[in-house]
Amino acid sequence: MFNIETVKQIKIAYIGGGSKGWARSLMSDLALDERMSGMVALYDLDFEAALQNEAIGNLSGNGKWRYEAVSSLKKALSGADVTVISILPGTLDHMETDVHLPEQFGIYQSVGDTVGPGGIIRGLRAAPMFADIACAIRDYAPDSWVMNYTNPMSVCTRMLYKVFPDIKAFGCCHEVFGTQKLLCEMVKERLGLNVKQREDIKVNVLGINHFTWVTEASFRHIDLVPVFQEFAAQYAETGYEPSGESWRDSVFHSAHRVAFHLFETYGAIPAAGDRHLAEFFPAFYLKDPEKWKFHLTSVGYRKQESLRRKKETDHMIKQKQGAALKASGEEGVNMIAALLGLGDLMTNVNLPNEGQAANLPMGAIVETNAYITRNRVQPIFSGTLPKRLEMLANRHISNQEAVAEAGFTQDDSLAFQAFINDPLITLDRADAERLFREMLSCNQIGAR
Amino acid sequence: MFNIETVKQIKIAYIGGGSKGWARSLMSDLALDERMSGMVALYDLDFEAALQNEAIGNLSGNGKWRYEAVSSLKKALSGADVTVISILPGTLDHMETDVHLPEQFGIYQSVGDTVGPGGIIRGLRAAPMFADIACAIRDYAPDSWVMNYTNPMSVCTRMLYKVFPDIKAFGCCHEVFGTQKLLCEMVKERLGLNVKQREDIKVNVLGINHFTWVTEASFRHIDLVPVFQEFAAQYAETGYEPSGESWRDSVFHSAHRVAFHLFETYGAIPAAGDRHLAEFFPAFYLKDPEKWKFHLTSVGYRKQESLRRKKETDHMIKQKQGAALKASGEEGVNMIAALLGLGDLMTNVNLPNEGQAANLPMGAIVETNAYITRNRVQPIFSGTLPKRLEMLANRHISNQEAVAEAGFTQDDSLAFQAFINDPLITLDRADAERLFREMLSCNQIGAR
Amino acid sequence: MFNIETVKQIKIAYIGGGSKGWARSLMSDLALDERMSGMVALYDLDFEAALQNEAIGNLSGNGKWRYEAVSSLKKALSGADVTVISILPGTLDHMETDVHLPEQFGIYQSVGDTVGPGGIIRGLRAAPMFADIACAIRDYAPDSWVMNYTNPMSVCTRMLYKVFPDIKAFGCCHEVFGTQKLLCEMVKERLGLNVKQREDIKVNVLGINHFTWVTEASFRHIDLVPVFQEFAAQYAETGYEPSGESWRDSVFHSAHRVAFHLFETYGAIPAAGDRHLAEFFPAFYLKDPEKWKFHLTSVGYRKQESLRRKKETDHMIKQKQGAALKASGEEGVNMIAALLGLGDLMTNVNLPNEGQAANLPMGAIVETNAYITRNRVQPIFSGTLPKRLEMLANRHISNQEAVAEAGFTQDDSLAFQAFINDPLITLDRADAERLFREMLSCNQIGAR
Amino acid sequence: MFNIETVKQIKIAYIGGGSKGWARSLMSDLALDERMSGMVALYDLDFEAALQNEAIGNLSGNGKWRYEAVSSLKKALSGADVTVISILPGTLDHMETDVHLPEQFGIYQSVGDTVGPGGIIRGLRAAPMFADIACAIRDYAPDSWVMNYTNPMSVCTRMLYKVFPDIKAFGCCHEVFGTQKLLCEMVKERLGLNVKQREDIKVNVLGINHFTWVTEASFRHIDLVPVFQEFAAQYAETGYEPSGESWRDSVFHSAHRVAFHLFETYGAIPAAGDRHLAEFFPAFYLKDPEKWKFHLTSVGYRKQESLRRKKETDHMIKQKQGAALKASGEEGVNMIAALLGLGDLMTNVNLPNEGQAANLPMGAIVETNAYITRNRVQPIFSGTLPKRLEMLANRHISNQEAVAEAGFTQDDSLAFQAFINDPLITLDRADAERLFREMLSCNQIGAR
Repeated sequence: MFNIETVKQIKIAYIGGGSKGWARSLMSDLALDERMSGMVALYDLDFEAALQNEAIGNLSGNGKWRYEAVSSLKKALSGADVTVISILPGTLDHMETDVHLPEQFGIYQSVGDTVGPGGIIRGLRAAPMFADIACAIRDYAPDSWVMNYTNPMSVCTRMLYKVFPDIKAFGCCHEVFGTQKLLCEMVKERLGLNVKQREDIKVNVLGINHFTWVTEASFRHIDLVPVFQEFAAQYAETGYEPSGESWRDSVFHSAHRVAFHLFETYGAIPAAGDRHLAEFFPAFYLKDPEKWKFHLTSVGYRKQESLRRKKETDHMIKQKQGAALKASGEEGVNMIAALLGLGDLMTNVNLPNEGQAANLPMGAIVETNAYITRNRVQPIFSGTLPKRLEMLANRHISNQEAVAEAGFTQDDSLAFQAFINDPLITLDRADAERLFREMLSCNQIGAR
Repeated sequence: MFNIETVKQIKIAYIGGGSKGWARSLMSDLALDERMSGMVALYDLDFEAALQNEAIGNLSGNGKWRYEAVSSLKKALSGADVTVISILPGTLDHMETDVHLPEQFGIYQSVGDTVGPGGIIRGLRAAPMFADIACAIRDYAPDSWVMNYTNPMSVCTRMLYKVFPDIKAFGCCHEVFGTQKLLCEMVKERLGLNVKQREDIKVNVLGINHFTWVTEASFRHIDLVPVFQEFAAQYAETGYEPSGESWRDSVFHSAHRVAFHLFETYGAIPAAGDRHLAEFFPAFYLKDPEKWKFHLTSVGYRKQESLRRKKETDHMIKQKQGAALKASGEEGVNMIAALLGLGDLMTNVNLPNEGQAANLPMGAIVETNAYITRNRVQPIFSGTLPKRLEMLANRHISNQEAVAEAGFTQDDSLAFQAFINDPLITLDRADAERLFREMLSCNQIGAR
Repeated sequence: MFNIETVKQIKIAYIGGGSKGWARSLMSDLALDERMSGMVALYDLDFEAALQNEAIGNLSGNGKWRYEAVSSLKKALSGADVTVISILPGTLDHMETDVHLPEQFGIYQSVGDTVGPGGIIRGLRAAPMFADIACAIRDYAPDSWVMNYTNPMSVCTRMLYKVFPDIKAFGCCHEVFGTQKLLCEMVKERLGLNVKQREDIKVNVLGINHFTWVTEASFRHIDLVPVFQEFAAQYAETGYEPSGESWRDSVFHSAHRVAFHLFETYGAIPAAGDRHLAEFFPAFYLKDPEKWKFHLTSVGYRKQESLRRKKETDHMIKQKQGAALKASGEEGVNMIAALLGLGDLMTNVNLPNEGQAANLPMGAIVETNAYITRNRVQPIFSGTLPKRLEMLANRHISNQEAVAEAGFTQDDSLAFQAFINDPLITLDRADAERLFREMLSCNQIGAR
Repeated sequence: MFNIETVKQIKIAYIGGGSKGWARSLMSDLALDERMSGMVALYDLDFEAALQNEAIGNLSGNGKWRYEAVSSLKKALSGADVTVISILPGTLDHMETDVHLPEQFGIYQSVGDTVGPGGIIRGLRAAPMFADIACAIRDYAPDSWVMNYTNPMSVCTRMLYKVFPDIKAFGCCHEVFGTQKLLCEMVKERLGLNVKQREDIKVNVLGINHFTWVTEASFRHIDLVPVFQEFAAQYAETGYEPSGESWRDSVFHSAHRVAFHLFETYGAIPAAGDRHLAEFFPAFYLKDPEKWKFHLTSVGYRKQESLRRKKETDHMIKQKQGAALKASGEEGVNMIAALLGLGDLMTNVNLPNEGQAANLPMGAIVETNAYITRNRVQPIFSGTLPKRLEMLANRHISNQEAVAEAGFTQDDSLAFQAFINDPLITLDRADAERLFREMLSCNQIGAR
């Protein structure tokens, strides 16, 4: 009568469905999952890219999933059980401005997509896009679960709730997984114990996206916070690089020196990569990335990489080759399965604060653990951030609230107040205003 | 170096350690558990009873756990990792007054330990006892996890937090398990599916103890709420009795007619036994228990049962016989293991409201699911109770807050306001006052 | 250039403008006021009555105010600076049901327009009317200040905010003035001091309409609470009747025995008439109004009075006679003047709770003092109601919230839950349901 | 029997009673007031200064008030009806460090007692002093009304509540009066109307001390916000200086250019002097005080002034001369009279936020209007600060909370986090740390 192990005929709407990164991971993870089947509607401003993904998707796996490029949000969303949002707000040219224009004023950024001048300008650009998406979800898929992967995470997710308060949306980010993996290595090194999977490291997660903190960590009955204290002290100067690896191997890598230094200063384990963490503080780490052993990822690199992927994609299409079927390590597919009732999850997500982050403002988008089961995503009460971190978190939250509002209402003067309230902006007023105006003038988007 | 599977040398303080019910279950469950070992300090006003349990405990299992009767709260608590509170506030004579004296005024109660005249008087009696216990925990075991099993659950747990706000206490109740079991039977009967264990029924729990509601329920991908709607309708008149069983088999049984009727009225699944549920409403079910197929459990029966257990205990002592080693179905030992880091749990507990019950007053003791892992009990955000239930829940919460305060400060006049605000008290003022005075006059406790 | 003493060309929209009571008081007070002039638009379902008031209004005073009956809410509201709502929700026949039908079940009411079965049914009737009015205000006069005089005050005012959250509405009630006057008499009698005007008695007001409490009272440097304690004790048995007066003089009078008894029980000064206060408690005072020296005001009396006023009105029209020019003692005109900037006021109003009543639910309509000045009505933080009163207030607030929602959404089943949660309903369920159904069946309103 | 016009035998405790400024104003205002008499206990670390004030006080006025220097907080507070706190936390040498040491790092301050490096270090110094005072009030005068005049206002008042949550304390500041006076002049100039007294200008006050904003202002029926808009625009470049006056006349004066510029930027009227306002923003106004026409008040000037007052005092003592009897324009004595029941006040005070500042954190010390009457100080609900100001206010509130906690617990590392979060600190980390350490090393206080 019932097959309680599987669910069929699921519809996933993928907004940003021309993506050459996340979309391929999803294809791969979906193909490998035994529990679900259905169709994925691919929507992208770049319809050609969506068509390519349609082709590649339909070549990936055993045919349980059908992929279809669609030409409107309405078509993508109608009937969707789950909506995935993973877009680039604007172009890499926009991102180049975000990241590199401030360098002319002595302001360096390692990522430039979350906070700092780059994150703020990107947020202003993304806000009206997410307002449009929220309207479409309200109109065409109000009961759909919505998973956002786009940065700036807090601003984008906030916009969804601002426009459609009943939306069932949450933001997903894998940075905490990296911290769990680091703790696994630490447990191996310092305690001589093998941890089977990162999920076995239990962490209490608390903060805002990319400024997330682990206030408690354990492996079985072992409290890992004092272990981390020793670990961080040991590698404070040299950084930690597992044998055979170097922080120079990739522009996304680091030696965790920023994290170790932050732990020493704030007493909680930072749960994001050094490149993200560094941007939340007044220029200090960012002034000397060599010393702190992390990279300022250039947009030039991203453009080059984009080109490479484009070629790879053309090649795949030509060769009628699907996505490589290997587990991505992302949790997206497990989250979808959990929402369908096929296996519970306890993991970190970004949601409006209902009290789960007790000393952060209600309504702000915060990152904590949540329990995911059939048709529910329920944050867990995660306590209070140490006062010294609360101060900084609140400053960034104020800014994110202002950016969401300013982007939505096109209020440049409010946006500027957020801009000069960012810790990276230590310019005098006239220079700050000049930088802001220049960045804004590059922030135009063609017809959407 | 580390054995990550087990934890040794745990100390459990058992307050009410002379218990012949819960204590024996704990002995049995501890003996069967492979993960932990240590000692249990048994404290009871009836020291002889604690000594008997010491003897029986030490005969139960394979010696991993040592039991010791102690003569003071200080001795019990010092060094405790976990504290279990499971006391009878007062005596069965007191309970006889709680339950049966109101009958002279036409007020009948099925349990009499939670709300109604009996629950209120019992709360007034228990409040100062729990104030004393909280003081002792603050002084001797402030870091201990405290599990309360005593009724009235909300009043007792509230007192612990009132006196020692930093206490790590939560209230445990198995009523929700019964609802999960009923849903298992329903799934079998209506869907033809076997559910391996009640934990596979996922429930969103929300309310106050014994007035708890399941607003969402699922088994794998199946939404069980519409299934329950049909199930409740089918058995609304006859009640549901699994083959070979009758609600008359035990004074604790019922045919769930009250639950079915409440579901029809309120649209959420009641998650407590009919005997408990009935007491929260103005006399309706309680006026005709035969019709609704549940029992008014008499204290005479409880006294008889107490005597039987006493004899059984004497016999066990004489025969040098330990507790029967069979799983109790309770979750206490799993909770302790989870708190030690030996396996996570998601289960229902009673905790001060920090937002997990969004439309109940902050600070009140509410029952929702919580995530239990090493050294953490974190409530999950469980949404809003339907308005028509919120109304009643708030009325009882007001009363419970008043009872805790009145019992603590010996404010009889405040207590009387709670008394006449209880839905079961529909007497006119003079009669209500007479009943209250008579009950109070029976509520004296010997020197503590 | 500026005349800073007066404001001209004010437009007042009067909804319920056919009124033969409040409307005439307003005419009189407006005529006597030197500071303002303008026009009053009279809107009433009974257009003839509005026309009569147009005639009478234009005969009242010195022509500073022009009165005009209008045929639609739109006409009344367009351009209004101030909107007064003072309607009878339904007819006196409806009110007859509200008050007297419950008598068949042994439930007596002294007013029947606030709580109790009568108040609840009236609230259900009024809710959709106020929803319509709120929509009209939103559409035609969103910036208008809105003064509501209609009962049930809390339900009606709540509806305005529910439908149009940005409305600038507040509820006005003169019951507190009566308490101030009683305190004036008390000061004269016990302290030998003359108080010039009731406003010289400073009171801290806290509660919900007709269940309002004065937690602090003073005259100059004298704390009046202990004085009231003695005063209440002195007249507890006999009641207080100023020389030459008797509580029997009017069906609206009392000897304050209920107030004195409540003060003794609850420790705060009740700030409403005995007839209103008695209805908030389980039948006790209402069972024996003779003993407690207050009246159950019959609707028969009201009908007779209505007839008398009707004749009086016809006579006035015939005689071309305006409203009697004597100060009504009401504060409406002073409130309007204050809102225009012509003189600040500190007085009690009904507003959504933003914290002014610290231990009542946020958003509920509460009564406290507020500061009224040009274009502002700002509640003052009035502290906490004693716990024993909070309990009762919360029970009624729960009911009022449910009645507003149920009336608005036509949810009879939710309405019934409020009905049986009312302290006056001590019937068994079947009888309660019968009474509720009968009352509902009489609650139909003709086409609106 | 009663004289309701006057109150006798009041005891005022004056902490900082050796003051040569505020204390003399109080003497004068008390002497001029007809309503009260009693004694003033003068307590000061500098007992000689208190003795001098005893002498001068007893020479001031008509003998209604007796002044007595006392040697302990206990003596000062015992039996006090009102407590005034007006101390210099530390010495002018400390203040010299606060203000001028940062100049070595390019950071200039106009006052240096509220925020910025000076305000933060002063707050750290004051916090333990106010903790001691709060303890003494709790022990010796728990029912006394406590008026704090000491800066940093928010930190000092916060400490009082932190240590003794039931304290009846509020902070008083006259900066808003200055804004009212400016509005009076504006009304005269632009509308040709004379305003009799500054209190006739009705203002809605909202913010934190010295960063307070008037969101609504009126004179009678005239909305003054649009008038201020024109006024500010007119004098934006030149500044506003009433005829015959120049901003250079005094180191405390300004031409309001900062206020005008802030109004243009933020849309609300700043309600503090330019010197205070400028310090809340990243260096912009402070970089060029000449241009903005306000002064950086040097501590050298303050020392010189202190010396002058010392000599003046010696002279007064020698000449047996009392304080000059002229009204100070301060509201302190009227506040005391209001608290005694001798005349209500509506004025701005600093109090923990209970919701009166709807979008600022609960519990933080905020400045809004409050209603003062016999034995009550009740804040009025004052709405929301515009988002762009809320951002900045929240950043300073975070800092103030941290400074209070850090000063109380001697947590220098937390203090440093506040320090680098201040908008005036745009130094790089190493310089910021060096400045902080140097300032801290100068912050020692002798034995208290």
